[in-house]
Amino acid sequence: MKDLDFSKFDGLLPAIAQDWETGEVLMVAFMNEEAFAHTVKTGKATYFSRSRGKLWVKGESSGHEQMVKEIRTDCDKDTVILKVVQRGGAACHLGYRSCFFRKLDGETWIIEGEPLFDPSEVYRK
Amino acid sequence: MKDLDFSKFDGLLPAIAQDWETGEVLMVAFMNEEAFAHTVKTGKATYFSRSRGKLWVKGESSGHEQMVKEIRTDCDKDTVILKVVQRGGAACHLGYRSCFFRKLDGETWIIEGEPLFDPSEVYRK
Repeated sequence: MKDLDFSKFDGLLPAIAQDWETGEVLMVAFMNEEAFAHTVKTGKATYFSRSRGKLWVKGESSGHEQMVKEIRTDCDKDTVILKVVQRGGAACHLGYRSCFFRKLDGETWIIEGEPLFDPSEVYRK
Repeated sequence: MKDLDFSKFDGLLPAIAQDWETGEVLMVAFMNEEAFAHTVKTGKATYFSRSRGKLWVKGESSGHEQMVKEIRTDCDKDTVILKVVQRGGAACHLGYRSCFFRKLDGETWIIEGEPLFDPSEVYRK
């Protein structure tokens, strides 16, 4: 599919979701060929969930879909960037805008910012 | 080391180098615990080269080092972001500022931008 190299991690490659406007990195997940094809076809970021062993359309539970505005790949074609519009404003399942809400301060990870939603509300059955 | 989860890819985790000022994603590589510790200690981005099977201080051949201004990790602590100042202005071994110089245009990857250096000059023995 589109000449990408899925060989390095047993059929998966890392995919970075980056805010279309600000460039903030929102999350990193993995894609298999099917997830990439689904992303291109639907315009919605679709990953492969390693823990669940299946395709994962981001936002299918939370409603926080990622609308893909641009797709880039690197020199080795073994990583992709999705430039996205993040619906609901937050990518992280813990409620933060970005999954990268921890910053190294000396020897300690400190949290920056506040959750934008309550996961127990968004993910309740 | 600093509570990171290196278990998911046989002792490695993905590391994203992002321009400290612009937020542009420059490259993605992998770190083992030793590479992470070396990065924190020296302030220079250090990865684990899967192809060479050893520690790789970015820029050790080219001089294009990455000076680390900030380190972030995600909700699962299995991925890191390095916010860096890219010496020489280009991170990619092909001479481009970013390794992500290819953009999907319909069915085709198109190249954006021009190399900033000639790899045959920079990497000659």
